[in-house]
Amino acid sequence: MAFSIDMSKLKHGTELVKRGFARMQKGGVIMDVTNKEQAVIAEEAGAVAVMALERVPADIRAQGGVARMADPNKIIEIMDAVTIPVMAKCRIGHIAEAEALETLGVDMIDESEVLTPADPFYHVDKRKFTVPFVCGCRELGEATRRIWEGAAMMRTKGEAGTGNVVEAVRHQRMVAGAVFKLKTLDADAIRELAAEYSKSYVNSTLSFFPSQKIVKTTPVFHEYTYGQVVDGLLDTLNQIKKMQRLPVINFAAGGIATPADAAMMMKLGMDGVFVGSGIFKSTNPKQRAKAIVEAVAHYDNPKVVAEVSKGLGEAMAGIEIKTIPEQQRLQERGW
Amino acid sequence: MAFSIDMSKLKHGTELVKRGFARMQKGGVIMDVTNKEQAVIAEEAGAVAVMALERVPADIRAQGGVARMADPNKIIEIMDAVTIPVMAKCRIGHIAEAEALETLGVDMIDESEVLTPADPFYHVDKRKFTVPFVCGCRELGEATRRIWEGAAMMRTKGEAGTGNVVEAVRHQRMVAGAVFKLKTLDADAIRELAAEYSKSYVNSTLSFFPSQKIVKTTPVFHEYTYGQVVDGLLDTLNQIKKMQRLPVINFAAGGIATPADAAMMMKLGMDGVFVGSGIFKSTNPKQRAKAIVEAVAHYDNPKVVAEVSKGLGEAMAGIEIKTIPEQQRLQERGW
Repeated sequence: MAFSIDMSKLKHGTELVKRGFARMQKGGVIMDVTNKEQAVIAEEAGAVAVMALERVPADIRAQGGVARMADPNKIIEIMDAVTIPVMAKCRIGHIAEAEALETLGVDMIDESEVLTPADPFYHVDKRKFTVPFVCGCRELGEATRRIWEGAAMMRTKGEAGTGNVVEAVRHQRMVAGAVFKLKTLDADAIRELAAEYSKSYVNSTLSFFPSQKIVKTTPVFHEYTYGQVVDGLLDTLNQIKKMQRLPVINFAAGGIATPADAAMMMKLGMDGVFVGSGIFKSTNPKQRAKAIVEAVAHYDNPKVVAEVSKGLGEAMAGIEIKTIPEQQRLQERGW
Repeated sequence: MAFSIDMSKLKHGTELVKRGFARMQKGGVIMDVTNKEQAVIAEEAGAVAVMALERVPADIRAQGGVARMADPNKIIEIMDAVTIPVMAKCRIGHIAEAEALETLGVDMIDESEVLTPADPFYHVDKRKFTVPFVCGCRELGEATRRIWEGAAMMRTKGEAGTGNVVEAVRHQRMVAGAVFKLKTLDADAIRELAAEYSKSYVNSTLSFFPSQKIVKTTPVFHEYTYGQVVDGLLDTLNQIKKMQRLPVINFAAGGIATPADAAMMMKLGMDGVFVGSGIFKSTNPKQRAKAIVEAVAHYDNPKVVAEVSKGLGEAMAGIEIKTIPEQQRLQERGW
């Protein structure tokens, strides 16, 4: 008797499969590209995936205004040009952009603060999608909420488009420090933390109807009740406490501009690196792309990092974080 | 029977050897250079070492943006051009830049606030390196933390790239005044001071997880617990109290532009002088470099200081500290 496995179930949409796809990127570099020529450069340099965009974060930041999902033709052009996975960005909470990207067949969606948020209350309910999502976080609360919502991969928010690694380091240390400290919390303290982490959903709900009190059965996130949210976050936190890491793969992103930046993030425990503006805003993208891939692969061998850092030409011009007006800090988007 | 000394142990990495190397610079001038021609001028003028850079602080300040580790090719070019020790700068907390510089064979690393900080919480754990480090400080707390972290040499932060000596004087007086006052503190008061000086590590940790209380066994700096940090700072403070000086060599840096500036810093008790932009941003670098070396060697002979100050041409154009916007004050970086 032949096997009768329903292959479509194995292939599509389970949390296991979505997280598993994300895990295949581990140890790699994912590069922002805005056209097929850049996509080919990224693939040849050894990128494990590309992020298809109309503009890199540095240009989005410089031009201001509203940044939205890319033209599908742009995404298809890039998908046709490379054999590696292609990711694309949707706005925070923009369920229609997310569904459109899914039907285009992108391999992963980045629900990204680099684009202008579309929903001031909720992120996309990512459990409902077959395609895996990656989301950004600054601290463990954001990471826990996104994972509970179904994100199959996390990344630091950093401060995209600045070429300044300090915010990515901040977010990695914030998450890793809190994960470590979870060890010291007993069951009551973890439940308290889950309740604290649910507050941003609760606050959204309260603003709908300020005179209402939140009770366990009050719906706070689409169809989920407050009680279900706290239970869900608690499950996720317990899993994190036990694993002593996020249960999904976790990349560095936002401000990585040099091979040494990429190596540093790996040394701090990240699973891989996104490079946005850092490559195609430098003077020598081909060589820099290869150098960053090498630095990530050999992050624990400083000789390699030093060697690939030689003669790279100018890195992207960077921005000191303190000079960015608060309303232009992309990391403040989402919560 | 022949000696059987393990030379590699003597040569490499112990605190004694790292501090000893730094001490060999005593009474000397260390000059910023951006190419081999400048390095040769510095060596011929009598510099005890050079700092290899892509841009001097005045240019970094003027251009803004993110300042990173220099291209290794630039550092190698300078190492090949001179016989004196060559130092290079890494960003505050950038462990991968520090390791890359170490493998290049630089003689000392300056973990410098002149570059854009990479880690908002921690400095490099300098004990883990074989190469000695120099770090800047504004007051005794910073000096104590950096020395506990393994710095083999200290310097004032001053305000680099301004040609204005007033901040270097401020920082020397802040440190020297506090060292003198340590004499009046009993054991309890010194332990209290050590606890106060540990606060910046503790604050970093608290920001990971605000609801947690700090207990002695809480990790606050990489793998060190709060108790270990306080004990370590206390040991360092007791050593400083006993020696009535920092236990590592301590140079002036940040704003020194004239022979008289350099002589003044020596008269205030510094062990030597870094000159950054002061030489190659002046109209006559060769003569000024020699004059500053002479002024440091004969700081207590005002006739020599007056003589070498004659006909030097224009010093670098300077900056009044109060006109610098707060986010551009390099001395505020690190803590």
